[in-house]
Amino acid sequence: MTRLFNDPAAFADEALEGFAAAHRDRVRPVTGGVVRAGATPAGQVAVVIGGGSGHYPAFSGLVGRGLAHGAAVGNVFASPSAGRISSVARSAHGGAGVLLMYGNYAGDVLHFGQAAERLTADGIEALTFAVTDDISSAAPEESAKRRGIAGDLPVFKAAAAAAEQGLTLDEVLAVAERANARTRSFGIAFSGCTLPGADHPLFTVPEARMAVGLGIHGEPGIGEDALPTADEAARLLVTSLLGELPEGVERPDGQRVAVILNGLGSVKYEELFVVYRKVAELLGEAGVDIVEPEVGELVTSFDMAGVSLTLTWLDDDLERLWRAPADAPAYRKGSLDAPEAPRVGNAPAAEDTDDTVVPEASDDSRGAAATVLAVLNTVADTIDTHAEELGRIDAVAGDGDHGIGMQRGSTAARQAAAGAHAQGAGAGTVLARAADAWADEAGGTSGALWGTILRALGTALGDQDAPTATRVADGVAQASAGVRRLGGAEVGDKTMVDVLVPFADTLTAATATGTPLTEAWDRAATAAETAAAATADLLPRKGRARPHAEKSLGTPDAGAHSLALIARAVHGVLLDHH
Amino acid sequence: MTRLFNDPAAFADEALEGFAAAHRDRVRPVTGGVVRAGATPAGQVAVVIGGGSGHYPAFSGLVGRGLAHGAAVGNVFASPSAGRISSVARSAHGGAGVLLMYGNYAGDVLHFGQAAERLTADGIEALTFAVTDDISSAAPEESAKRRGIAGDLPVFKAAAAAAEQGLTLDEVLAVAERANARTRSFGIAFSGCTLPGADHPLFTVPEARMAVGLGIHGEPGIGEDALPTADEAARLLVTSLLGELPEGVERPDGQRVAVILNGLGSVKYEELFVVYRKVAELLGEAGVDIVEPEVGELVTSFDMAGVSLTLTWLDDDLERLWRAPADAPAYRKGSLDAPEAPRVGNAPAAEDTDDTVVPEASDDSRGAAATVLAVLNTVADTIDTHAEELGRIDAVAGDGDHGIGMQRGSTAARQAAAGAHAQGAGAGTVLARAADAWADEAGGTSGALWGTILRALGTALGDQDAPTATRVADGVAQASAGVRRLGGAEVGDKTMVDVLVPFADTLTAATATGTPLTEAWDRAATAAETAAAATADLLPRKGRARPHAEKSLGTPDAGAHSLALIARAVHGVLLDHH
Repeated sequence: MTRLFNDPAAFADEALEGFAAAHRDRVRPVTGGVVRAGATPAGQVAVVIGGGSGHYPAFSGLVGRGLAHGAAVGNVFASPSAGRISSVARSAHGGAGVLLMYGNYAGDVLHFGQAAERLTADGIEALTFAVTDDISSAAPEESAKRRGIAGDLPVFKAAAAAAEQGLTLDEVLAVAERANARTRSFGIAFSGCTLPGADHPLFTVPEARMAVGLGIHGEPGIGEDALPTADEAARLLVTSLLGELPEGVERPDGQRVAVILNGLGSVKYEELFVVYRKVAELLGEAGVDIVEPEVGELVTSFDMAGVSLTLTWLDDDLERLWRAPADAPAYRKGSLDAPEAPRVGNAPAAEDTDDTVVPEASDDSRGAAATVLAVLNTVADTIDTHAEELGRIDAVAGDGDHGIGMQRGSTAARQAAAGAHAQGAGAGTVLARAADAWADEAGGTSGALWGTILRALGTALGDQDAPTATRVADGVAQASAGVRRLGGAEVGDKTMVDVLVPFADTLTAATATGTPLTEAWDRAATAAETAAAATADLLPRKGRARPHAEKSLGTPDAGAHSLALIARAVHGVLLDHH
Repeated sequence: MTRLFNDPAAFADEALEGFAAAHRDRVRPVTGGVVRAGATPAGQVAVVIGGGSGHYPAFSGLVGRGLAHGAAVGNVFASPSAGRISSVARSAHGGAGVLLMYGNYAGDVLHFGQAAERLTADGIEALTFAVTDDISSAAPEESAKRRGIAGDLPVFKAAAAAAEQGLTLDEVLAVAERANARTRSFGIAFSGCTLPGADHPLFTVPEARMAVGLGIHGEPGIGEDALPTADEAARLLVTSLLGELPEGVERPDGQRVAVILNGLGSVKYEELFVVYRKVAELLGEAGVDIVEPEVGELVTSFDMAGVSLTLTWLDDDLERLWRAPADAPAYRKGSLDAPEAPRVGNAPAAEDTDDTVVPEASDDSRGAAATVLAVLNTVADTIDTHAEELGRIDAVAGDGDHGIGMQRGSTAARQAAAGAHAQGAGAGTVLARAADAWADEAGGTSGALWGTILRALGTALGDQDAPTATRVADGVAQASAGVRRLGGAEVGDKTMVDVLVPFADTLTAATATGTPLTEAWDRAATAAETAAAATADLLPRKGRARPHAEKSLGTPDAGAHSLALIARAVHGVLLDHH
């Protein structure tokens, strides 16, 4: 929902004011909108775009060299009036006429049409052009009735670049027509936006469903379906657009196409990239050659959750216009000056160490490796079972990712260990491989620390000797020291160190007196559980990762808790294997 | 929430893959992240940034000339491992050492520190630097413990621009230290994000409240307060940052400052601009000179609703580095080539027609103008009362803005009419001014049509003659014809035409037989009410604005309904004034 506003009635004007203030080097506010800070060169056709507010960067963010000469901006989701449009057009006019461009909505058609009449009456040659790219808004045979959505951008850009190249008004209009005729969009949505000051969204989509064929003002979709995976969404978008090729394009194979994957507001960049990955793959399979794709937020609808795909089927002229440089507040293209040296003779990316060969190992150690693998499987299972609980505990004062991080790490460790074991590795190598995999995949603090723990254990066990209770205890003691050194924490700081130290100490003390490993581990696990529970009473050291640590009083530390859970679970494996 | 993903565990990798595909002309994927497509020039220090995924454009979007040489990217909200960081650093290394830069989080500190050790062991000179800009995460005397949030950008950029200028590794580090020491951020949040595959958000903020002092991973804030207006939010952010000036800055007055207003994900651009408007004003009042501000999404947290303000207090060196050109996928700065001609000798923005002088009017017409003003006041009151209902009806098949548009238009018309009336205008001029104001302020289809209606009435009444029942009926008939012509709709298309035509016809017929205006109007209003209700049974013409019109079966048309409401309300005024 839209939360930050003053008087909702003043929202659009205040947003325009703030936009102009932030980009005062590039745009100049005029009555009704903005024009470029620099003058339209004499004799150049001026392209004036526009529409309602709420779609940024459409429309004001698209004013600049290589793009629009001016933008007329209306109230939230409402066309600017003919008066506002005429005012912007007069300011942008360079003496060679004005092309007024907008998405095809009834209000815009009316107001831009009236503005063109007024301008013409005043002696300024003016034509209008409405973009009609949204294939879900009318059937192919009624394509002139279609709405304009993210296809606004390539059509505006083609016309503006043509104007920049000195074409006449009629020629610029012809370019707009050709670009529009070759541009198609299709979108899906998961939730609507709430306008400033409104108390409910323009539309809603049931949980775990999607609306197919969205409008950028919350116009309902043409259908509804289950929430897709990213790949399914990509397939729906691509298939829909490949199903309606523009006139003159017989088959996608061998065509050059400008591609825009547009986020409507709260489908965010990483999600868009995940979808784009599949879009590019599917278009590639269809033989399409993608030209300078755009993935981002280009025509939005406040924080509406939706995504649309736009394809512009290029010919040579349209490709040149699509590639032409542009420099608007929200859309830039073209090199700054000389291109960078191509990457030749530079070191290629370092490849990971060759993992295929494992060091020689004794039969004893290979036998122990089976136990190690069982331990790591149990660790991963234990974490899977408790992942949500760990995340919840971690969220009290941290970022709540402890569960998911431990899950990624322990799963990767289990896989790496299985691979090494299958190749006949000893216990030391199995643990070392597991350590690297855990650290690499889990990331985060816990990833580094668990990598250290497994590596210390691997070093202590090695690939030759049979693992004794003392060796295991030594490994745990090394792990404890390594974690303290690396993490910089001590007992009492409310971290996993609070558990690891008594666990290691108990294990060392018990094995030193000859207690069998299973029993020694049992005692150590009990000490770990007690220590983990006790972290609930601690106030953690105020530090980098936990600025709001005091909130965690009464909750155990997530890292301490997970360590105790693992210690206990591993005891079960030792009983089975002993 | 995050909706588009495949296997949540593969999310970060797939996003990186899609990012690299979309920007293959600018970046090259390597193990662990991306590097610039072009080689790091020999002898140039490489700046390698990084952190968890989920913060785009941090970190991969900030790789490019004038910015980072490479970015190491971890899993969602998790530091990249030392192995991934080392891999990226090796690929980016240009022979002059590497500065590893990241926000100050425990996991990043560990992994980047380990990576620096590994690189050094391999003969690549490597230093680390953690950004600590978030003033809410630790007290000033513990500023080294603070988190890095949107201040990452100016600190990364300063170091990278310094590297580009040929400084040594130690010198680049010193620049990073100075930029960081002079950079402060403060943020607020309204809702947390939900990670891919998770079933609840990382944190929640109660409805209509805000968390003060957000973290970019959903770390809880340091306090909570009522949801602010945009201006209050701006004041909180500015006041917090002006309350802690960096060492060496005695007072804000006369300082040059880089300003970043950063959206965390679903606080959108227009909202940011509304907030920025006040931020710029408040900083201006404090005597601060704003240098090249940035307003947008630069360090995000999926679709978290939050906003942060960052100030970098510039000295001459830092200002040069901040202004230096940059060309990364998500951050570009600097001119394309020659600057555009400054705007001199160009026509200034057309000013609105001088509204201060009203044409001469007869006493009769001035008397009638008082009635017109009363009518317009009643129209505005009626719309205010029904605005929400009208929006709800319109949302069924349209964009739900009919109520708000009518409100804006009728309010503006009321004000313009009052102004003209106070200047002694006749009925015709009062209606003409009201018509222009309605069309200008309301925008949208209804704005254009109501402007036409009032203008037709104004023309029929004029400023000289006393308004007779026939003149009023003639004006309404003209309005009906104008609306049909302009809107291109006919009776039966489920628009306001369905009501306007029988209303006008009834009024004309009644007045033609000498029926007094109040009674004729009463009959016409009844016809209007009947016709409006009947639109519920109509299937609208499939057209531009209403692709999903069939959904409206059973609901009256909003424009038809509001016209009938107005017709009835105006009858009350005529009774009072007759």
